[in-house]
Amino acid sequence: MSAPSASVDGDRLWQRLMQLATFGGTADGGVNRQALSAEESPARAQLIAWGRAIGLTPFTDRAANLFLRLDGTDNALPPVVAGSHIDSQPTGGKFDGAFGVLAALEAVTAIVAAGNTPRRPIEIVAWTNEEGSRFAPGMTGSCLFVSQLQLDIAEQTKDAAGICFGKARDMILAGDSDVAERPFNRQLAAYIEPHIEQASVLERAGLPVGIVTGIQGTRRYRLTVNGQAGHAGTTPRAERRDALLAAARIVTALDDAASQIDDFKFTVGMFNVTPNAPSVVPQQVLFSVDIRHPYNDIVDAFDETIGALAEQHKGPCSVTVSQITHAPSVQFPKQMASLLQSHAESLGIPTMPVYSAAGHDSRQLSYVCPTGMLFVPCRDGVSHAPSEWAEPAHLTAATQILADALLDLASN
Amino acid sequence: MSAPSASVDGDRLWQRLMQLATFGGTADGGVNRQALSAEESPARAQLIAWGRAIGLTPFTDRAANLFLRLDGTDNALPPVVAGSHIDSQPTGGKFDGAFGVLAALEAVTAIVAAGNTPRRPIEIVAWTNEEGSRFAPGMTGSCLFVSQLQLDIAEQTKDAAGICFGKARDMILAGDSDVAERPFNRQLAAYIEPHIEQASVLERAGLPVGIVTGIQGTRRYRLTVNGQAGHAGTTPRAERRDALLAAARIVTALDDAASQIDDFKFTVGMFNVTPNAPSVVPQQVLFSVDIRHPYNDIVDAFDETIGALAEQHKGPCSVTVSQITHAPSVQFPKQMASLLQSHAESLGIPTMPVYSAAGHDSRQLSYVCPTGMLFVPCRDGVSHAPSEWAEPAHLTAATQILADALLDLASN
Repeated sequence: MSAPSASVDGDRLWQRLMQLATFGGTADGGVNRQALSAEESPARAQLIAWGRAIGLTPFTDRAANLFLRLDGTDNALPPVVAGSHIDSQPTGGKFDGAFGVLAALEAVTAIVAAGNTPRRPIEIVAWTNEEGSRFAPGMTGSCLFVSQLQLDIAEQTKDAAGICFGKARDMILAGDSDVAERPFNRQLAAYIEPHIEQASVLERAGLPVGIVTGIQGTRRYRLTVNGQAGHAGTTPRAERRDALLAAARIVTALDDAASQIDDFKFTVGMFNVTPNAPSVVPQQVLFSVDIRHPYNDIVDAFDETIGALAEQHKGPCSVTVSQITHAPSVQFPKQMASLLQSHAESLGIPTMPVYSAAGHDSRQLSYVCPTGMLFVPCRDGVSHAPSEWAEPAHLTAATQILADALLDLASN
Repeated sequence: MSAPSASVDGDRLWQRLMQLATFGGTADGGVNRQALSAEESPARAQLIAWGRAIGLTPFTDRAANLFLRLDGTDNALPPVVAGSHIDSQPTGGKFDGAFGVLAALEAVTAIVAAGNTPRRPIEIVAWTNEEGSRFAPGMTGSCLFVSQLQLDIAEQTKDAAGICFGKARDMILAGDSDVAERPFNRQLAAYIEPHIEQASVLERAGLPVGIVTGIQGTRRYRLTVNGQAGHAGTTPRAERRDALLAAARIVTALDDAASQIDDFKFTVGMFNVTPNAPSVVPQQVLFSVDIRHPYNDIVDAFDETIGALAEQHKGPCSVTVSQITHAPSVQFPKQMASLLQSHAESLGIPTMPVYSAAGHDSRQLSYVCPTGMLFVPCRDGVSHAPSEWAEPAHLTAATQILADALLDLASN
């Protein structure tokens, strides 16, 4: 690798992580900094201030995505971009999202400090509403950026208090000082997102960094089983249309089928019974099905299994199956993984390829430019919790790989 | 039968049934009038007003059971009592419970109108929380009355909103105007409860009235399956302790076992998942099991089956089984059935003996005094549903038998 070196400062990275965690910080050590909230606004202002202090120019867009741009020697070229998000779950931690943004900031800070001016511009990004805990579903900023979502639909999405995304965005943008807006869907040279793993593969392997090969797909369904209410003591078995027994048999059959497929994730997380009274034969059950697997053909094939097993086990009830989300699995391009891995090797940092079971903004970016991710282990695989924790040495290692990769990509 | 006659007014009975159904009446023609609720309070006031209009004295007790008393010529004698309950299931109908109370009111109204003053007092009763849909288990008022339940335990029972039975009772009693309280467990001469059949035996036989021979036993359980919450996308199958999958397998296994036993009724009516979020592996499921059969030994044997199958199918979760109700099957005394049948014969009303598959307050009363029940057919055997329906002519016939039986019992 011919890129000039830029040495990241792990202490500065850590201090900034701890400082950012005070915006929305909770008494239990966690973070509640939901998208476009009063907690996110000062965190955004802090990022802009850090960027301006090293000569970066802030930009935003109609999604309130925040970019901090380091100009290159040829600013007509598409930029190299790195980052993640700074919104959190209501019971979030200090690292999910924030690490990716601050790693990008630290990498660019190191590049600037080393006196390097790359050929291409480099941009740090914080995508809006990745978590989706305030405005469901998540990934709003990256979806809008890559035209996977219509702006007018996003703007009308409401939070639990009835506030529209559009209004919340206008409020956050009103807090910005001299930050220009740019259009969506600008051409990008590449995108790299550092993130905590949210699983235990790296921790078990005892490795500080993982090179992410792709993102697992998800399909989500709602199944409605309709039966007939009846008296628990008097309705004879032959006359019952018990929606709960049918639903239990469908769930069990689906789980049996899912258990036959390696690495398949099958979850029924929500299960609502009507009328849900101990002495009434259930009239209706509405339940969720969430299926995930690294390979799209396996997830797609299970789609038919759901319909078939629901029909087979519905008994005297009727059943309807509605798919509500379909996000195919993504494989990142091999050249990005190779580039990240070779920089890790040059630095003497051991890595392994890992697959992302959770969703990230990099899914959307992978549709429009060469994309890669770097994972660091998180303790016990825990995320979305106050106890979320990553080792400073691992964060520094991933950030150094990022800095070298950004310089490399921005030099070509 | 030497009792003087008192002719009931079927139109008045029907009008009162329709009027009572407006308290908690739902748009689909059903009734949601749960125990001690804001819907039940004005229904109670209406009953008191109807009673006072014909000279009856209202009384209540620490269970908020409501009595309307017609004095006799010898008021030191234990009263003859008839009635049922006015609370409903959340998706209840117009007849379950309400018919028994209003049949007793109509019978006494007819007795008063005929100028009869019986030797014994006659009391109409509405027992509190028969259904158990608000405060589980049901039959609270009759259980307290016959000392099958301790008052302090009943008072601490909470509804889904966390409101105690004791507090809800105090609120309903505060709405009463000049209604004195009497102790539980007063001596009764006899108890008769008219009710819709909640099954199809009478309808199939084409008969207007059934003389009830006994009540099917019930055991009720709560099963709690404890697993561990996890991320639907990242938690590997081998590490999951999915409480819902374990619960679904336990329910399915229990239903398979129940299906092997003739005339066995197995119902899981309530099934509550925590945290009940589509992308979170369920941490806990709490569900109800209700088993019934005319023969006590069959119900008793299934008790062991529940524990064994719960253990066998709990997978990586833990499970606890708590029995919350055990009501053995009851046979009513033959003299009460004979008395009701002979009055039916005198009136030329055809009847047949029927067995009650549902539980009723008369179970508790049968422990302390000679008890009987009269059933009328309900359309398609449906109850606990807005479509619940009984024919006016059948209701009038049963009410006339009740009036003659009450006069007979109160004269001796």
